[in-house]
Amino acid sequence: MKSFVNYSETSDFSIHNIPFGVAVFNKEYIACATRIGDIVVDLATLYDFGFLDDVDGLSENVFEAYTLNEFIELGKPVTSAVRLKIQELLLEDSLLAKDEKSIEQCFFELDQVKMLMPVHVPNYTDFYSSEQHARNVGEMFRDPANALLPNWKHLPVGYHGRASSIVVSGTDIHRPKGQTKPKDAPAPVFGPTRQLDFELEMAFIVNRNTEMGESISTEQAEEAIFGLVLFNDWSARDIQAWEYVPLGPFLGKNFASSVSPWVVTLEALEPFRTEGPIQDPAVLPYLTFTGNKHYDISMEVGLTPSHGTEKTLAKTNFRHMYWNMCQQLAHHTVSGCNIEVGDLYASGTISGNSPESFGSMLELSWKGENPVVLNDGQKRSFIEDGDTVTMRGYAQKEGIRVGFGEVVATILPSKV
Amino acid sequence: MKSFVNYSETSDFSIHNIPFGVAVFNKEYIACATRIGDIVVDLATLYDFGFLDDVDGLSENVFEAYTLNEFIELGKPVTSAVRLKIQELLLEDSLLAKDEKSIEQCFFELDQVKMLMPVHVPNYTDFYSSEQHARNVGEMFRDPANALLPNWKHLPVGYHGRASSIVVSGTDIHRPKGQTKPKDAPAPVFGPTRQLDFELEMAFIVNRNTEMGESISTEQAEEAIFGLVLFNDWSARDIQAWEYVPLGPFLGKNFASSVSPWVVTLEALEPFRTEGPIQDPAVLPYLTFTGNKHYDISMEVGLTPSHGTEKTLAKTNFRHMYWNMCQQLAHHTVSGCNIEVGDLYASGTISGNSPESFGSMLELSWKGENPVVLNDGQKRSFIEDGDTVTMRGYAQKEGIRVGFGEVVATILPSKV
Repeated sequence: MKSFVNYSETSDFSIHNIPFGVAVFNKEYIACATRIGDIVVDLATLYDFGFLDDVDGLSENVFEAYTLNEFIELGKPVTSAVRLKIQELLLEDSLLAKDEKSIEQCFFELDQVKMLMPVHVPNYTDFYSSEQHARNVGEMFRDPANALLPNWKHLPVGYHGRASSIVVSGTDIHRPKGQTKPKDAPAPVFGPTRQLDFELEMAFIVNRNTEMGESISTEQAEEAIFGLVLFNDWSARDIQAWEYVPLGPFLGKNFASSVSPWVVTLEALEPFRTEGPIQDPAVLPYLTFTGNKHYDISMEVGLTPSHGTEKTLAKTNFRHMYWNMCQQLAHHTVSGCNIEVGDLYASGTISGNSPESFGSMLELSWKGENPVVLNDGQKRSFIEDGDTVTMRGYAQKEGIRVGFGEVVATILPSKV
Repeated sequence: MKSFVNYSETSDFSIHNIPFGVAVFNKEYIACATRIGDIVVDLATLYDFGFLDDVDGLSENVFEAYTLNEFIELGKPVTSAVRLKIQELLLEDSLLAKDEKSIEQCFFELDQVKMLMPVHVPNYTDFYSSEQHARNVGEMFRDPANALLPNWKHLPVGYHGRASSIVVSGTDIHRPKGQTKPKDAPAPVFGPTRQLDFELEMAFIVNRNTEMGESISTEQAEEAIFGLVLFNDWSARDIQAWEYVPLGPFLGKNFASSVSPWVVTLEALEPFRTEGPIQDPAVLPYLTFTGNKHYDISMEVGLTPSHGTEKTLAKTNFRHMYWNMCQQLAHHTVSGCNIEVGDLYASGTISGNSPESFGSMLELSWKGENPVVLNDGQKRSFIEDGDTVTMRGYAQKEGIRVGFGEVVATILPSKV
């Protein structure tokens, strides 16, 4: 497939991708969008011009919206057909390729565009599904000989996170404040966190509302998953450590999470399916599945200090998950918990087996025992004010590249 | 104060209350409403008739809505003035009292009305703020000698709950399914919970959106709290026990929570302020407060088996909280976590000091060791299919009664 839009071989936004997002065009007009190379396409205007007229089930201009929710809710048969239609329109010699006037009105350069949150997120859940991450945390804080807790290989452990503070890439984050209990101090103290961390994650977004009492099976799950984004689950380790027993993370996580602006569809990731690890012990029947449910997606995280250059801290891969997305969604809903369009389900930190593939500063610096050295010689155990954290992700195979772009955020000092 | 509407002395919905909710009138028309005695008043029509014209800041008919969110977001000065105006209109000899035609169109008997969820809840947090409840749970599952965890008296422990499955009183609940690990079993098993429980709680609803990075002080908190509802935090104890370490409750809670339909404003509860317990050790400065921040609200829970009569299981009081709502909100936001209009913050199970005042079956039956005996001699350690759980709450003082009515739900078998 060759597009009439030129882009570099290393672009995440090839003709094979066709992701969806929400953009402000020329600082004045908001609409749903897609991207090819460095061109952002205004889908609301494309719809108005009639280019999507022959897509069944797309009877209204759902792209004239501040979020993708209405579009996503149309369900796979429609969203998938829309994606294929857009792909066709972006090919050489398409109807659109020859229509200069439409191109002029629908196509925007990156610098004319600001990306917004792609979806309204009614509910957000964070899983804990990378075995190496769970082992690392267990080794550091619990028992190295029994790093994994007894339930870990039987169910995808997860918790409900704070939906209100999920923000799009490019949004600066204020350092959170909270209570911490310094080792051997007689009482807790209050102040800005001294152990601010990122967590390198993927997250999936669902396309439907279900009724309470209903469940989604592993078999049905993919039909309910619209697509994926990169996810930075910011964490304040010292706040978390003092608060989290017995009810889990709270202020240590609820101040912010960052997502990448482009939702990459499951369809675009289809060529990158891969096998997951063998699950031993065998899982309960409701968690069994058939076929390849993992995806081979390279991920990395870099840190740029203020006035400095970016240092790559870790490279990992989404295939390093013990539990796959279908299992996560099946488990989440097996209780009868209903889901809502736009719900976001994050993977948990994705760590590989080697130290260079750990997905958090906590693991990379091993609780601060081995600080990371930046390009200019500065050391980091955790994230400092002025630091910018950038995460990237892409899949590549036989000349096809499909990526997420990046999720980036800079840490500002605490508000007084 | 005397209303031209007659109601019994024991009505929760006296002229001193004036709560807010959302109703379906005559199965066809949805609007915001208030209630006096057994009369539900359609506020959208009352507004249209001009009765609220002289309330400053009420320039649109925010009562023509499916939720209270738009009304609540107007903020205290407006919502408080609206409440006072409605109260005035309901007094003997008011303009409304003499207007039979308006009364006919705005007033509905209870059986002409079905109540809906009063607010859209963007985010839901559950605290764990009753000392006796935390002690009871600690004694049962951890160390009786150190029942309270080290952080408990330093911060109001809480966790993010599932917002999607909060439903209004009267909604039946399907028994949740999930993994449990029977004692001494080699591996977990899957099936309907065998330890379904209620938790008797109050919850408050906030009236504003804040920016990320900002906090709400204990001083500012009351201005941000619109009102309260009764809250039943349904829990599956066996599922929760197996899943909750280390990240907190998940499927054990996310299948359903029930709220009462009428939001009782803080203003209506003003006469019932009372002192809380002395907090020792002293709390950190951001958790200090002045004045009485507790409320004297009697609460009770009853169980009605199918084909049986209601047995009162426990009576307790909202004043039995260690942490008050202002402290909860100040703590929640001190990290910079933003709040949203309609957010719901639940107290955690409210247990008093004596066994008759425990707010959950877990505590009442002490893990099932002492089953509760119902009126017909049946025993209950936990909730069975067909059981109806009813919670009530009211404040009473010097002839003034302000109450919440009830939150009621029946347990249905698991969906297949």
